[in-house]
Amino acid sequence: MADQSEIEEGLAFAPQFGADGLVTAVVTDAKSGDVLMVAHMDAEALRRTIESGEAWYYSRSRKKLWKKGESSGHVQRVVELRVDCDQDALWLKVEQQGPGTCHTGRRSCFYRAVPLGKGGAVTLEFRDAEKAFDSKAVYGKP
Amino acid sequence: MADQSEIEEGLAFAPQFGADGLVTAVVTDAKSGDVLMVAHMDAEALRRTIESGEAWYYSRSRKKLWKKGESSGHVQRVVELRVDCDQDALWLKVEQQGPGTCHTGRRSCFYRAVPLGKGGAVTLEFRDAEKAFDSKAVYGKP
Repeated sequence: MADQSEIEEGLAFAPQFGADGLVTAVVTDAKSGDVLMVAHMDAEALRRTIESGEAWYYSRSRKKLWKKGESSGHVQRVVELRVDCDQDALWLKVEQQGPGTCHTGRRSCFYRAVPLGKGGAVTLEFRDAEKAFDSKAVYGKP
Repeated sequence: MADQSEIEEGLAFAPQFGADGLVTAVVTDAKSGDVLMVAHMDAEALRRTIESGEAWYYSRSRKKLWKKGESSGHVQRVVELRVDCDQDALWLKVEQQGPGTCHTGRRSCFYRAVPLGKGGAVTLEFRDAEKAFDSKAVYGKP
């Protein structure tokens, strides 16, 4: 492992995968700046993303490599890929092909807000939650 | 654990902390939309953030709760807090007090880009990497 100053100030790309072999990937819409999703990449997903310019991830639930859009056609073209100071998180600015990112049919996975300034139980509020596409038709699942 | 449709479509806030007791928090600048940092929250950091409207996190390296800005004065006022479809990631839109977010002195922690379309070893490129403040003076560390 490279030393901390090399990781923070150097130009060698040395992604710091966690004990699970993954780094966190934050995906924003290159035009609006909105956060579309948060996902994870293993070394192979990262390699394919860099080489192809299209986003690949590793699914923790399905335990497999996946290309965003492989089922839905909603591919993400990566406009810019950045790494953070300690190289354990990635930021992808993407052009999202198709009407939306989220498997629920929304444009973004972040369609609910948590009200601030309250203690106790919290009730979410829908925000930008209109469906952009019919997820059942796109993914073919009930 | 609530069932999947309740987690995705319900209004009950049920953050899905990982085995380490943490959820991922993506922090963007409320004005520019730029990703400033990626951090983690435990239940207590999240509770304090919701109640106070200022961002608290859990440091995995220091193994302790911390309020952003407690050393630097660079507090983050939370403009909006959102949760994603499966409630295992949070998005904070913040007004960053002071000149920058990153402990290295940059405005954002994401000050290097990974060039795309290449195989093999990758050389990073500085991007928006000018120092916004003197981190040694602010944090008092060499």
